[in-house]
Amino acid sequence: MRPEQSERNGPAILYGWHTVTSALENPARVFHRLLVTENAARRLAEDALALPCLPEIVRPDAIAALVGPEAVHQGLYAEADPLPSPDITELEDRGIVLVLDQITDPHNVGAILRSAAAFAVAAVVTTARHSPEATGVLAKAASGALEYVPIVTVGNLARALVALKERGWLTVGLDSAGETDLAGIELADPLALVLGAEGKGLRQLTRATCERLARLDLPGRIKSLNVSNATVLALHIATSRLNAAQARG
Amino acid sequence: MRPEQSERNGPAILYGWHTVTSALENPARVFHRLLVTENAARRLAEDALALPCLPEIVRPDAIAALVGPEAVHQGLYAEADPLPSPDITELEDRGIVLVLDQITDPHNVGAILRSAAAFAVAAVVTTARHSPEATGVLAKAASGALEYVPIVTVGNLARALVALKERGWLTVGLDSAGETDLAGIELADPLALVLGAEGKGLRQLTRATCERLARLDLPGRIKSLNVSNATVLALHIATSRLNAAQARG
Repeated sequence: MRPEQSERNGPAILYGWHTVTSALENPARVFHRLLVTENAARRLAEDALALPCLPEIVRPDAIAALVGPEAVHQGLYAEADPLPSPDITELEDRGIVLVLDQITDPHNVGAILRSAAAFAVAAVVTTARHSPEATGVLAKAASGALEYVPIVTVGNLARALVALKERGWLTVGLDSAGETDLAGIELADPLALVLGAEGKGLRQLTRATCERLARLDLPGRIKSLNVSNATVLALHIATSRLNAAQARG
Repeated sequence: MRPEQSERNGPAILYGWHTVTSALENPARVFHRLLVTENAARRLAEDALALPCLPEIVRPDAIAALVGPEAVHQGLYAEADPLPSPDITELEDRGIVLVLDQITDPHNVGAILRSAAAFAVAAVVTTARHSPEATGVLAKAASGALEYVPIVTVGNLARALVALKERGWLTVGLDSAGETDLAGIELADPLALVLGAEGKGLRQLTRATCERLARLDLPGRIKSLNVSNATVLALHIATSRLNAAQARG
């Protein structure tokens, strides 16, 4: 095994228009390889995007061969260094963070990152062990959000929650058995919203460590949402209520 | 090609615990085949679920061979007739319907159906041509919602919107170039929320046919959400506002 293959993350695989162009505009990204179709090269030139490395002009099927025939690559493929993961102690104590408890599906994690960027979330906290590497699927689903939302990787989620609590963060776990609807809980900034994996929900220790447990009340026959759908709803509710509280003074 | 293979839908492939057990409890489902692992058979017996056909007890890898190694089948696999698609004229003129304009990704459509069931949506309207068949992936992502939410398949989406408008439905298209934030538009029951595919958005004719166009204002650097995330947010906002209006009188 060559040294670069033994690194934990390997290169970040990036494909798709938003994913790659957002990365190209991020000065913190170090690129190793950039494959571009003729059409995509024309679009990049029209958008006057400065390229940090020399692109290889390729046919679309050369990218399809790397990412699979189902992946929507839109003529752009890159290999880059993964972005550095900040330490949890580096976070400013304000705003909202999302804490993901063993959510591993890359479509879901990617969509969650995208929503996190849309709601100006300060960071996403996740366990190194059970969360996916920033694979191509995750990066594509994140639609550029990897460049905007810091991902804090921690070894022990409960310990990270305790650390946040000690620094004044309110930790609220989303749980179908929660005491109150999220819309009825008093929220405070800084706020950590903790989300569990589909089916399993929050682990016992995570649940016990959260200061409050809240559910999302739903009027229909299905009582739980896809985890990225639950996350965006929680972000909307929390953001609206924190804004309203701030407006009241 | 044998006659049953030439039918438009083919059988509905169902796998995963929620997906298959919800179908087993639906008296309208006609099953052709039911594969069950020993573990799943035990769980079904514990839940005292009546089986509408004789299950074949199989090893997990027999199901994996049918649905692929990545699919989370949880020991249950079924082939059944697709549920009948009601005609748009059969809908009662009340509540909310979701209208999907060429949204085809089965993960997204499945998650949208699940949220639709969670918000007690009256129906999901979709074009036959560009929407996915109720494939296994879609059914799995819907997590049982196929049994609860009628899917109305129409040939022409604009014509369906006109028909709804003539019957008193307010048609609101979600569009990033919408005139107002959805939270600021006066809504009315019955309400049709119209959603476009990612990247493309609403088609020109769809946009022109909607009575109102609304955007979803987002505070962060990314200004658009995954389409199933946008849908659940729109459903939450619309449901809250219609409930508040009803409470006011």
